[in-house]
Amino acid sequence: MAETFISERNLKFLLYEVFTITDLTGYPYYEDHSQEVFDMVLDAAMKLSKDLLLPVFEEMDKNQPEFVDGQIKVHPRVGEFMRAAGEGGWINANYSYDAGGQQLPLTVTLAAHFIFSAANYSASVYPLLTSGAARLIESFGTEEMKEKYFARMFSGEWQGTMAMTEPQAGSSLSDITTLAEPTDNGYYNMKGQKIFISAADHDGVDNVIHLMLAKIKDAPPGVRGISLFVVPKQRIDENGKLEFNDVHVSGIYHKLGYRGSPIVQLSLGDNGDCRGYLVGEPHKGLTYMFQLMNEARIDVGLGAAAIASAAYYAALEYTRVRPQGRRLTDKDPTLPQVPIIEHADVKRMLLFQRSIIEGSLSLLFQCSQYADYEKVLTGEERKRYSLLLDLLTPVAKSYPSEMAILSVSQGLQCLGGYGYCDEFPLEQYYRDVRIHPIHEGTTGIHGITLLGRNITMQKGRAYKVYLEEVHKTIQSAGEYPALQSQTRELGEALDVLNDVTQHLVGFAQEGKVGLFLADSTLYLELFGIICVAWQWLKQAITIRKALEHNLSGAEADFYNGKNYAFRYFFDYELPKISGLAKTLKKSSGITLAMTDHLFTD
Amino acid sequence: MAETFISERNLKFLLYEVFTITDLTGYPYYEDHSQEVFDMVLDAAMKLSKDLLLPVFEEMDKNQPEFVDGQIKVHPRVGEFMRAAGEGGWINANYSYDAGGQQLPLTVTLAAHFIFSAANYSASVYPLLTSGAARLIESFGTEEMKEKYFARMFSGEWQGTMAMTEPQAGSSLSDITTLAEPTDNGYYNMKGQKIFISAADHDGVDNVIHLMLAKIKDAPPGVRGISLFVVPKQRIDENGKLEFNDVHVSGIYHKLGYRGSPIVQLSLGDNGDCRGYLVGEPHKGLTYMFQLMNEARIDVGLGAAAIASAAYYAALEYTRVRPQGRRLTDKDPTLPQVPIIEHADVKRMLLFQRSIIEGSLSLLFQCSQYADYEKVLTGEERKRYSLLLDLLTPVAKSYPSEMAILSVSQGLQCLGGYGYCDEFPLEQYYRDVRIHPIHEGTTGIHGITLLGRNITMQKGRAYKVYLEEVHKTIQSAGEYPALQSQTRELGEALDVLNDVTQHLVGFAQEGKVGLFLADSTLYLELFGIICVAWQWLKQAITIRKALEHNLSGAEADFYNGKNYAFRYFFDYELPKISGLAKTLKKSSGITLAMTDHLFTD
Repeated sequence: MAETFISERNLKFLLYEVFTITDLTGYPYYEDHSQEVFDMVLDAAMKLSKDLLLPVFEEMDKNQPEFVDGQIKVHPRVGEFMRAAGEGGWINANYSYDAGGQQLPLTVTLAAHFIFSAANYSASVYPLLTSGAARLIESFGTEEMKEKYFARMFSGEWQGTMAMTEPQAGSSLSDITTLAEPTDNGYYNMKGQKIFISAADHDGVDNVIHLMLAKIKDAPPGVRGISLFVVPKQRIDENGKLEFNDVHVSGIYHKLGYRGSPIVQLSLGDNGDCRGYLVGEPHKGLTYMFQLMNEARIDVGLGAAAIASAAYYAALEYTRVRPQGRRLTDKDPTLPQVPIIEHADVKRMLLFQRSIIEGSLSLLFQCSQYADYEKVLTGEERKRYSLLLDLLTPVAKSYPSEMAILSVSQGLQCLGGYGYCDEFPLEQYYRDVRIHPIHEGTTGIHGITLLGRNITMQKGRAYKVYLEEVHKTIQSAGEYPALQSQTRELGEALDVLNDVTQHLVGFAQEGKVGLFLADSTLYLELFGIICVAWQWLKQAITIRKALEHNLSGAEADFYNGKNYAFRYFFDYELPKISGLAKTLKKSSGITLAMTDHLFTD
Repeated sequence: MAETFISERNLKFLLYEVFTITDLTGYPYYEDHSQEVFDMVLDAAMKLSKDLLLPVFEEMDKNQPEFVDGQIKVHPRVGEFMRAAGEGGWINANYSYDAGGQQLPLTVTLAAHFIFSAANYSASVYPLLTSGAARLIESFGTEEMKEKYFARMFSGEWQGTMAMTEPQAGSSLSDITTLAEPTDNGYYNMKGQKIFISAADHDGVDNVIHLMLAKIKDAPPGVRGISLFVVPKQRIDENGKLEFNDVHVSGIYHKLGYRGSPIVQLSLGDNGDCRGYLVGEPHKGLTYMFQLMNEARIDVGLGAAAIASAAYYAALEYTRVRPQGRRLTDKDPTLPQVPIIEHADVKRMLLFQRSIIEGSLSLLFQCSQYADYEKVLTGEERKRYSLLLDLLTPVAKSYPSEMAILSVSQGLQCLGGYGYCDEFPLEQYYRDVRIHPIHEGTTGIHGITLLGRNITMQKGRAYKVYLEEVHKTIQSAGEYPALQSQTRELGEALDVLNDVTQHLVGFAQEGKVGLFLADSTLYLELFGIICVAWQWLKQAITIRKALEHNLSGAEADFYNGKNYAFRYFFDYELPKISGLAKTLKKSSGITLAMTDHLFTD
C-alpha cells in the first residue's frame, strides 16, 4: 500500500497560487480565516486520513456491509470516523456561524474531501452525505427542524441521506410514486419504496435522517408534483425519545466496488406508521433537491479525481522500484535492468494520469470558487458566478468521473500482471472508481443537461459568460512566450467549440430536438476536454510566474513536473477534440434512425 | 443472466459470406470438410457452451480456485469440461490427421473458441492452453514426445501450459534465470521460479505438461540463450507410471476477474529432482515460443471480443425491458415510460459495442484466414500471408483487448446502478475483460512490436503488402454508390497512416530511436482503428450484396442492423484518428524528456 495518496504541494498550489483563496478573507463572511487556518484544516484532514481512513481502505472492501437482522452492519471504523468527523467540525465546516458551522470556504472543505476520498473513498461519503442532507434543512427547513436534527447530524451521531431513486424511477425522477398523505397532526404518512440509497442504514450511527422526495396525495403529475420531506429512521417523540418510524431496510446491494459504503433498499410505512415532515413548500421538492444534487455532483467528480490520485501514487511507487527491461538505445542483456519508470511508454501513462487528475481538480476548485464568491458577492457579479457554476456543474461531475476510470486503468496497467492482483491496491481503485459516471446522474443525463438546458438557458448567457472567462485566461497567457502555442491551441479549440455549438443549437432552432441532443454525451466530452485545457493553461500561467524565480530542489522539480503534465494535456488530450468535432458536425442521426429490432443479431 | 451471448447469425455471416471459408475445402488439406461440417462444429460448440459453460459462469467467479494442501482446487466443472473438450475433439481440432487431429481450419476453431469464451471465458482457457502447448511439441518436439503426451493432452486428461514469466522477467524475457543443467541421461535438471502461469496446476486433470523457457547452463546472455523444455508435473517413469517431478505450487494469485482460471506460482527443483526435456535445438526457445505466443495473442484478442459480446447481449436485454423516461419529443408525464432502448444515447452505447465487437471479430478472422491459407499455399503467396499475419498479430491482440474494456464499460453503463451490482453479470464481465491488455504481452509491448519491428521488417514489405490488401477492399467498395463516403474516408485514413508512418520511420532512419518509439502505443491505436475500419468496409460490401436481394423479416433486420453498426464505426470511431495523428506528428518528445524525480508531486 502506497503511503502517498495525494500531493499536498499541488493542493496548495491550486488553492493559494492559482485560485488565491486567501482573497476570500477580504470579505466579511470569511474574514476570520487566513492561510494559516486553511493550512491547519488541510493538515488535520491529512492526519485523520492517515490515522483512520487509509489503514482500513482494503479491510472495508473485503468486509463489505451486510444486511443482518433487519439492520446494515458496517465496518466498526465507520462509526469512529463519523464521530471524529463530528468532533473535528468536518460535517458543518462550511455552514454559517448561525447554523453552528465554521464558515469555511467550500474550496477548502473540498480540498479536505479530496484528501479523505483519496485515502478511502467509501469511508469519506458518510459525513459528506450527512453534511449534504443537513444543507437542505438549512436552506429550506424550519427552525424547529434545525433544532431537532442539526446537533446530532453535525456531531456525526446521526447519518443523513438523499433518498430519491425508486424501482421505476432512476434517471426519471418525475416518475416517483412514494406517497405522502397529509394528516391533521403536521406530518405526512409516507408509503413507498426507495432503492440505491447510499448509507441509508447502518450500525455506525444512532439514527438516519432521510431527505426524501415523495408525492403528496393528489399532486400534479410529473416533476411539478414532487415534494421534499424529512423522514427519520427514528422519529423523536413528545418526550424527546427516539421511536421507530416504520422505515425498513428491505435489502442491500453487493457491488463491483465502493464496497465500504452500503447502498440500501428501503421500504416506508409497511405498518402505516411512517411520518414525513414537509420541507419548504409542497411541490417544490425537486428544485430544492437540485441544490443538494449540484453540490453532490461536484463531490462525485472530486471523488473520482481523488481515487485516480491514490491510484497514480500507487502506480508511481511501483514504477520506481520495479526493474524490467533496458533502454531502447541500450539493449545489452548483461547490463542490469532499469526501473520501468525509465521507459517512455510508462512515463506517458504516468503523465496521462497526472494531466487528468490535476486538470480535473483545477476544474473542481474553479467551480467551488464560483460557489464561494456567490456567497459574498451581489447583483450582476453574483449572477455571473451562479451562471458559471450552473453551466460547469455537469462538466465538473462527468469529466473527472469518465476520465478517472481511464486514469486508474492506466495506473493498473503500469503494474502489469500485479495490477490485476489484489495484493496491490490498483484493482480496488479500478472497481471503486467505476461508480462515478453512474451515481448523481449518469453521464448521458449530464450531456443532456449541459447541451439541452445549460448552453441554451437565458439565450445562451451562461455560455457567453463562460467564453469570456476562457478568453481572460487566453489573454493573460498571451504575455508568456513559453505559452504561445498552447494559448493559440486553446483559442482554436474555442473556435471548434463555437462552431459545433452553433451547429447543434441550429437543430434546436429548427425544432429538430432529436438531432440536437442525439450526441449530447459527445458534446459533453468535447466541452470537458476544452474546459480542462483552459484549467491547465490557467495553471501554466502560475507555473511560468514561479519559474521566473530562481528555484531549485523540490520546488523546481514541482513546477517543472507540472509543466510536463500541462504540456502532455495539450499534446495528447486536447487533440482529441478534432475527432469529436467531426462526429458532432456530421450529425448523421444514425442513433435516432436505428431501431430496437435491428439490434438482435 | 442473458440467454444470448453471441450472434450465430453474425458468425456465419463472417465465416461464409465475408471470408468464404468454404473456399478452403478446394485445397487437399481441407477437402474432407464442407459448410455442413463447419455448421456442425458451431452447433456443437453452442451446445457445449449452453450445457457446461454458461451455467457456471457466475459460480466459477464466486468460488475461485484456492491453493489447498499443495494443490490448486478448481470448480468441479473444469475437469468435466476438459474431458468433454477432449471427447468432442476440441483440443486437437485443427491439428493434422497425422497428429491425430481433424485438420479443421483455424478460422472455424476460432469461431468455436469465440462461443466458448463468450459463455465463460475462464473455463474456455483450459483446453485452449493445452492445445497451444501441444502445438509446440508438434512443431518442434520429438516423435517420442508426441507419443508420450499427445493422447492424454488431447483427451483433456492432462493440462498444458506455457511457462515463461519469472519474478524478475515479465515483459523482458531475456532476463529469465530458470536453469537447465544437462545430465547424461537425456534430460536436464531444472531449477527456478515461474510466476503468472495460467492453469499451471489444478485438480481437474491428472497431470500438467509445462512448455517452459529456461537457460541451459553457460548459455549466452539475453534472448539468444533461451531454450524450450517440456517439464511435466509428473513425469512418466520407465514402467509408464506417473512419478512426481519436483514441480511445486508456491502460490496462487487472487485477481480482479478471470477468477475461474488459476494463475499460479511454481517452484522447480526444490529437491533437485525436476527433469526437463529439451524441445528442438538449444537456444532457440524464444523463437519456438513465439509461434505459440502469436497464436495465443489472437486468442487473447478473441477472448476480449467474446466477453464484450456477452456483455452486449446482457445490456441489450436490459435496455429492452427497462422502462425509464420518455422520448425527448414527448415529455407528458402521464404517458407510460418507454424502454430505454428508445433513447438515442442508449442506442449510441449499443451501436458502439456492436461496432467494436463485430469489427474486432472480423479482424481476428482475417488473421486466422491468413493462417489457414499459409497452410495450403506455397511460394510468394504463402510468404504474403505470413507477412500479413505477422504484421497484424499485435493489432489483433491489442485493439480488441483495449476496446473491449470500453465496450463492456458502456454495456455496464446501459444498466445504470444495476450495472454496478452483482445481481447482473455486467460487473463480472467488466472485471474479467480487464486482463486482456496485460496477458500475452502488454499493449505497450505490442506497440513497440508493431512499429519497431513489423512496420520496418524486410524494408517495410509487410506494411506494403498490407496497404495493397486494404486498397483491394477500397477498389471493390468503389462499385457501390451507397459506400462512396466511407470508401473515400478509408482512403483518406490510409493517407493519414502513411503520413504518420513515414514521419516516425524518419526518426528511425536518423537514428533517433527514442522519438521513433516513444508514442508507439498511440501508433498501434491509430493503426488499429484504420484496420478495423477496413474490416467494416469489407463487411459492408457483403451487406450491400445481400441487400440487393429482396430480403424481409429477420434477414433484412440482420443486414440493416449491421449496416448501422458499420456506419457507426465510420461516423464515430474512425474520426478518432485525427487527434491521434496530430499527437503522433507533433512528436513533442515530452515522455522522453520527463524524468523520475519530476513525478513526485
